[in-house]
Amino acid sequence: MEEWALMTLVIVGGLMGLAFVGYLMYTILRESEGNAQMKSISKAIRQGAMAFLRREFLTLAVFTVVIFIVLAIFIDPKPLVAVAYLIGTVTSALAGWLGMNIATQANVRTAHAAINSWAKGLKIAFSSGAVMGFCVVGLGLLGLAIVAFIWKDSHVWLGFAFGASSVALFLRAGGGIFTKSADVGADLVGKVEQGIPEDDPRNPAVIADNVGDNVGDVAGMGSDLYESYVSAIAASMVLGVIALDTVTGMFMPLCLAAAGIVVSIVGALSVRPKEIKEADFEKQVSQAHGAMNTGVYVSNILMIIASLFIIWGFTGEFKYFWALVSGLIAGFLIAQATEYYTSAERGPTKKIARSAQSGSAVVVIEGIATGMLSTVFPIILVVIATILAYIFGGLLGIAIAAMGMLINLGMLLAMDCYGPIADNSAGIAEMAGLGKNVRERCEALDAVGNTTAALGKGFAIASAALASLAWLATYFEVADINTASLTNVDVIAGVLIGGMMTFVFSALAMRGVSDGAYAIVNEVRRQFREIKGLMEGKAKPDYVACVDIATGMALKSMLIPGILVIVVPLVLGFTLGPESVAGLLVGALLTGFLMAVMMANSGGAWDNAKKYIESGAYGGKGSEAHKASVCGDTVGDPFKDTAGPSLNILIKLVGKVAVIFGPAFAVWIAL
Amino acid sequence: MEEWALMTLVIVGGLMGLAFVGYLMYTILRESEGNAQMKSISKAIRQGAMAFLRREFLTLAVFTVVIFIVLAIFIDPKPLVAVAYLIGTVTSALAGWLGMNIATQANVRTAHAAINSWAKGLKIAFSSGAVMGFCVVGLGLLGLAIVAFIWKDSHVWLGFAFGASSVALFLRAGGGIFTKSADVGADLVGKVEQGIPEDDPRNPAVIADNVGDNVGDVAGMGSDLYESYVSAIAASMVLGVIALDTVTGMFMPLCLAAAGIVVSIVGALSVRPKEIKEADFEKQVSQAHGAMNTGVYVSNILMIIASLFIIWGFTGEFKYFWALVSGLIAGFLIAQATEYYTSAERGPTKKIARSAQSGSAVVVIEGIATGMLSTVFPIILVVIATILAYIFGGLLGIAIAAMGMLINLGMLLAMDCYGPIADNSAGIAEMAGLGKNVRERCEALDAVGNTTAALGKGFAIASAALASLAWLATYFEVADINTASLTNVDVIAGVLIGGMMTFVFSALAMRGVSDGAYAIVNEVRRQFREIKGLMEGKAKPDYVACVDIATGMALKSMLIPGILVIVVPLVLGFTLGPESVAGLLVGALLTGFLMAVMMANSGGAWDNAKKYIESGAYGGKGSEAHKASVCGDTVGDPFKDTAGPSLNILIKLVGKVAVIFGPAFAVWIAL
Repeated sequence: MEEWALMTLVIVGGLMGLAFVGYLMYTILRESEGNAQMKSISKAIRQGAMAFLRREFLTLAVFTVVIFIVLAIFIDPKPLVAVAYLIGTVTSALAGWLGMNIATQANVRTAHAAINSWAKGLKIAFSSGAVMGFCVVGLGLLGLAIVAFIWKDSHVWLGFAFGASSVALFLRAGGGIFTKSADVGADLVGKVEQGIPEDDPRNPAVIADNVGDNVGDVAGMGSDLYESYVSAIAASMVLGVIALDTVTGMFMPLCLAAAGIVVSIVGALSVRPKEIKEADFEKQVSQAHGAMNTGVYVSNILMIIASLFIIWGFTGEFKYFWALVSGLIAGFLIAQATEYYTSAERGPTKKIARSAQSGSAVVVIEGIATGMLSTVFPIILVVIATILAYIFGGLLGIAIAAMGMLINLGMLLAMDCYGPIADNSAGIAEMAGLGKNVRERCEALDAVGNTTAALGKGFAIASAALASLAWLATYFEVADINTASLTNVDVIAGVLIGGMMTFVFSALAMRGVSDGAYAIVNEVRRQFREIKGLMEGKAKPDYVACVDIATGMALKSMLIPGILVIVVPLVLGFTLGPESVAGLLVGALLTGFLMAVMMANSGGAWDNAKKYIESGAYGGKGSEAHKASVCGDTVGDPFKDTAGPSLNILIKLVGKVAVIFGPAFAVWIAL
Repeated sequence: MEEWALMTLVIVGGLMGLAFVGYLMYTILRESEGNAQMKSISKAIRQGAMAFLRREFLTLAVFTVVIFIVLAIFIDPKPLVAVAYLIGTVTSALAGWLGMNIATQANVRTAHAAINSWAKGLKIAFSSGAVMGFCVVGLGLLGLAIVAFIWKDSHVWLGFAFGASSVALFLRAGGGIFTKSADVGADLVGKVEQGIPEDDPRNPAVIADNVGDNVGDVAGMGSDLYESYVSAIAASMVLGVIALDTVTGMFMPLCLAAAGIVVSIVGALSVRPKEIKEADFEKQVSQAHGAMNTGVYVSNILMIIASLFIIWGFTGEFKYFWALVSGLIAGFLIAQATEYYTSAERGPTKKIARSAQSGSAVVVIEGIATGMLSTVFPIILVVIATILAYIFGGLLGIAIAAMGMLINLGMLLAMDCYGPIADNSAGIAEMAGLGKNVRERCEALDAVGNTTAALGKGFAIASAALASLAWLATYFEVADINTASLTNVDVIAGVLIGGMMTFVFSALAMRGVSDGAYAIVNEVRRQFREIKGLMEGKAKPDYVACVDIATGMALKSMLIPGILVIVVPLVLGFTLGPESVAGLLVGALLTGFLMAVMMANSGGAWDNAKKYIESGAYGGKGSEAHKASVCGDTVGDPFKDTAGPSLNILIKLVGKVAVIFGPAFAVWIAL
C-alpha cells in the first residue's frame, strides 16, 4: 500500500476512537442529573476534582517547561525531541482531563438512572469508563502518529513517550497520594472517632474522598496506561525500523493499534447488560461481569484475527503474530491469577479472613505473605511471554508482545474506569438519601467495580513490566549497548541502586499518605470543633479545605521521588556509564514489578477479606475478627492505591529518562 | 616463608580460637547455677534446645546423605567435593551444637551471678556469646584449612562452603520459624487471652519461647555467619589462586583469617565492664555498650595493622589492603546506620511511636516505610565498598572486602550471641522469682542485648550480601562465564525468577510462623483446659509438647523453600544455561538484600517504638497507642527473626548450588 493510504488508515482509526468518545459523551450527558441535592453533591465532587487537576497541571507545566528547555538544549535532534515531549504531555493531560470531566458528570447520572433501572446505571457508568478508555487510545495513537508522520526520526518518537511519563507521574503518583490521604483521613475521624457512616455528608472529608476515586482511579489509571500504551507502540516502531524496513517498521505497529481501537469499539458496544428488576445482589453482579466479559472476549477474538491479516500483510510471515498473541494471552492469564488471589470467593482471601481471628498482626502477616506468593504467576507468565516473543521475533518481538497485551486497551480501560464511577454513584446515593433500593443497586454496581479495578491493577502492572522490557531493548539500541554484563561491577552497582530506588520511591509515597491522612484528620477535627451545628446537620462543612490539603500534600510528597527518578539515572549514566544504567533499569524493573504485584494483591485480598467477614463470617461486622480485618484493609489502602501503582510509574519513567539521555551518556563517558 | 611454616601458623591460629573457647567454657561452667528451681528451669530450656537440635540434625543427616551421594556421583573431582561438603556440614553443626550447649548453661549462671554483681552477669553472658563466636571462627578456619592442605584443588574447597550452607538452612531458617512460632504463640494465649505476664512459668509455651532464643539467635545466627565466614575465605582463596600464584592465593586469606582470630581474642579480653552497684538502668546500659565497643575498636585497629603487614608480606603491595579496609569500614558503618533506624533514641523509631496514636494500621504502614528507607545506606555502602574493592583488586578485591567485613567475626559474634543469653537470663530471673533487683539487672543486660542483636542482624545481612557478591565472582570463574549480559533474554528471565524466588521463600517462612503460632495457641489452650490446677500454679504444664510442635512446624515449613532453592537454579542452569543462573543469583541477591534489610529494620524499629511507648510516651502501657505498637511489634517478629534472616540463607545457598553445579551446566548446554 502507498504510504499516504497507510497514514489515512491510522488517522481514521484514531479519529474513530475520538468519534466514539463524542457519541458516548452525548449518550451520557443527555441523561438527567436528578434533584438539586444530587446536582450539588456532584458539582462539589467535580469542582474538587478539577481543582486538583488545575493545581497538578500548574506544577506539571513548570516541570514540563524545565524538561522542555533541557531537552531543547541538550538532546538531538534539537529541538524536535523537546517538541514531541510537549505534544506527549499535552495529549496525555488532555485525555486525563476529558476522562475525569465526564466521569464526574456520569457518577450522578448513574445514581439517578439506578432509581429506575439497574441496567441503565451500569450502562452509563461503563460508557463513562469507555470515555476515558477511548480518549487514551484515540489521543495516544493520533498524537504519536502525527509526530511520526511529521518527523521520521525515531529519536523524536521517544520524546513523545517521555512526555506521557511526566503526566503519569503527576496524575498517578500524585493522584494515589491524594486519594488515600482523603480516604484514610475521612475514615479515621468519620467512622472511627465520630461513628458516622461512610459517605455521610456531614464529614468534611467526604467530598475529598469521592474526588480521590476520580483523580486516582480514573485520571491516574488513564495516564498510567496511556504511558504504557504509547511506550509499547513507540518501542515497536523504533525496533521495527531497525529490524525491518522503515515503512513496515513504522506502520505495522500503528496499523495494529488502529485496528485495536476499532475492535475495542465493537467490544464496548457488545457490553449489553439485561435489566434485573428484583433486588438480587448475586445475580446483578454475575450479570454485570458476564456483560463486560463478553466485551473482552469479542475484542480479543477480533483482534487476533485482525492482527493475523495485518502482520501477514506487512511481513508475509507469522512470527510477529505469535509474539503479539503471547503478550495478549499473558495479559489475560495474569488477570485471572489476580482474580484468584484477591477474590473473596477463593482460598487465599478466605485464609486471610480466618487468620483475622488471631488479631490484626496475624492478618497483616498473612496478607503480606499472600501478596508475596501472588507474584509467582505474573513473573512466570511475563518470563514465558518474553522468551517466546524473543524466540519468534527478537527484540522487536518483545515490543510486539507488549503491544499485544495493550492492544485492546480501549475496552480494558473502560472496564477499569467503570469501577470508581460506580463507587462514586454509591456515595452520591448515600449522601443524597436516595433510599435503600437505589443504594443497593449502586452497591451491586460498586462490587463489580471492585473486581474490575483489581484486575485492572494486575493488568496495569504486568503491561508496565512488559512495556518496560520492550523499552529496555530500545535503550540497548538507542544507547548503542551491545553488552551490559553482570560480570561488570558497574552493572551490579546499577542493579542494586535501581532496586533501592524502588524501595525509597514507594516508602515516600506511603509516607505521603500517612502524613496526608494526619493533616486531613486534624482539619476534620477542627471543623467539627469550630463549625457550630455541623454534627446536627444544620451547618455545611468546608469541603474545599480538605481537597486543598490533600492536593497540597500530594504535590509536596511527589517532589523528592519525582526528582530522584530523573536524577539517579542521570548521575549513574554520567559517572558509571550507560551499562550501569542498564543495570539500574533491570534492578528497578525487578523490584518494582515484584513490589507492585505484592502490594496490589495484598491490598485487594485484605479488602475482600474484610468484605467476606462483613458478609457474616467469623462473627461478622463489629466482631474482633472484623476489627482485625479493618486493620489489614487500612494497611492495604496505600499499598494497592498509592505505593503499588506509583511503582508502575517509576519503572517506566526511569526507562524514559535512560532512553532519552542514553546517547549522551555514551558520548560523555567516551570523552 | 616455607609452606609448612604457613600451614603451622594457620593451624595455630585456629587452635588458639578453640583454646580460647575451652578457657571461656571453664570460666563459665565453674560458676554456680543457683537454686533447685533455677536449675530445673535451665534444664528444661537446655533439654528443649537439644531436642530441637537432635531433630534438626536427624533431618539434616538425611538431607546431607542425599546431597553427598549426588555430589559423589556427578561433581568433579569425585568424590572429593562430596567429602569436603561432609566436613563443612559436620564442623558447622559442631559449632552450632557447642555454642548452644554453652549458651543454655550460661543463661542460668548469668541470672545467678546477677544476684550479687551486675558486671559479673554481663561477663558470663558475653563469655558465652564468645564461645559461639570463637567456635565459629576456630572450627571454620581449621576445617577449611585442613581441606585445603589435603586437597589443593579449589573445586574441593567450594564443597566445604556448600556444607556450611546446608547447616545454615536448617539452623537459621528452621530456627527462625521455631523461635517466632513459640514467641507469638506464647504471647497470644499468655499475655492476651489469660492475662499472665511474659515468662510466667504457668504458660506451657514459656520454655519453648526461651528455647527459641537459643535455637534462633545463638545456633541460627552462628551457622549463618559461619557460612558467610567460610564463603568469604573460600572465595578469596579460589580467586586468589587465579589472580596470584597458588601459594599466595591460598595462604594469604588463611593467614588473614588466623590473624583475625588472634586480634578478636585480644578484643574479647578487653571487654571489661566495671561494677555498678546502684540500680541505674541508663548507666548500666551505657557502661555495657562502652565495654563491648572497646572490644570492637581494639580488634578493628589491631586487624588493620596486622593485615597491612600480612598483605604486604605476601604481595609486596597494598592494593588488597585497601580492599580489605573498605569492607571492614563498610561493615562498621552499616551497623551504625542500623542503629540509627532502630534505636528508640532516634527519629525514625520515635516517628513510628508517634504514628501509633492513629492506630495499628498506621503503625504498620509507617514501620514498613521506615524499613524501606533504611535500605539506602546499606545498599550505597555495599556498592561503594564493592566498586572500591574492584578498583583496587579486581574480583579478588571483592572477595577480600567480604573477608574484611567478616575478619573480626569472633569478637562481633560474641556481641550478637550475648543478646539471647541475656534475654534468657531475664526470663529465668522472672520464672524463678529472683526478686525485683535481680530482674532489673537482668533486664538492663537484656536491653543491651536487643541493640547488639539488631546491629548483628544488619551486619549479618550486609556480610551475606558482600560474601554473595564475592561468590558471584567465583561463579563466573568456575562456570567459565565471560559475560552474562542483560541484553540476553535468558539472563533477564533469571533475574526475574531470582527475585520471585526470594518473595516465595520469605512468604513461606512467614506462613510457617503463623501456622506454627496457631498450632501452639491451640496446644496451650488445650493444656489450660485439660490440666487441672495449672492456672493456680498447682500443676506443671507439659512444656515438651510445645517444643515438639514448634520443632515439627519448623521442619515442615522449611521443606518446600529448601527444595526450591536447590531445584530452581538447577532447572534454570540445565535449561536456559549458566548465564541465566548468573541472572538468578543477581535477582535473588538484590531482592533478598533489600527485603532482609527492610524486614530486620522495620522489625527492630517496631520493637523499640513499643518499648519507647512503654517507657511512658503517648500514654504508656495499656494506652491505645501501646496496643497499636504491640501490633507493629508482632508483625515485626517474623519479619526480623524469621523471614529476614532466612533471606541471608537463600542468597548464599543459591550461590553455592550455582557454583557447585556451574561446570555441569556449561557441559550440558554444550551437548
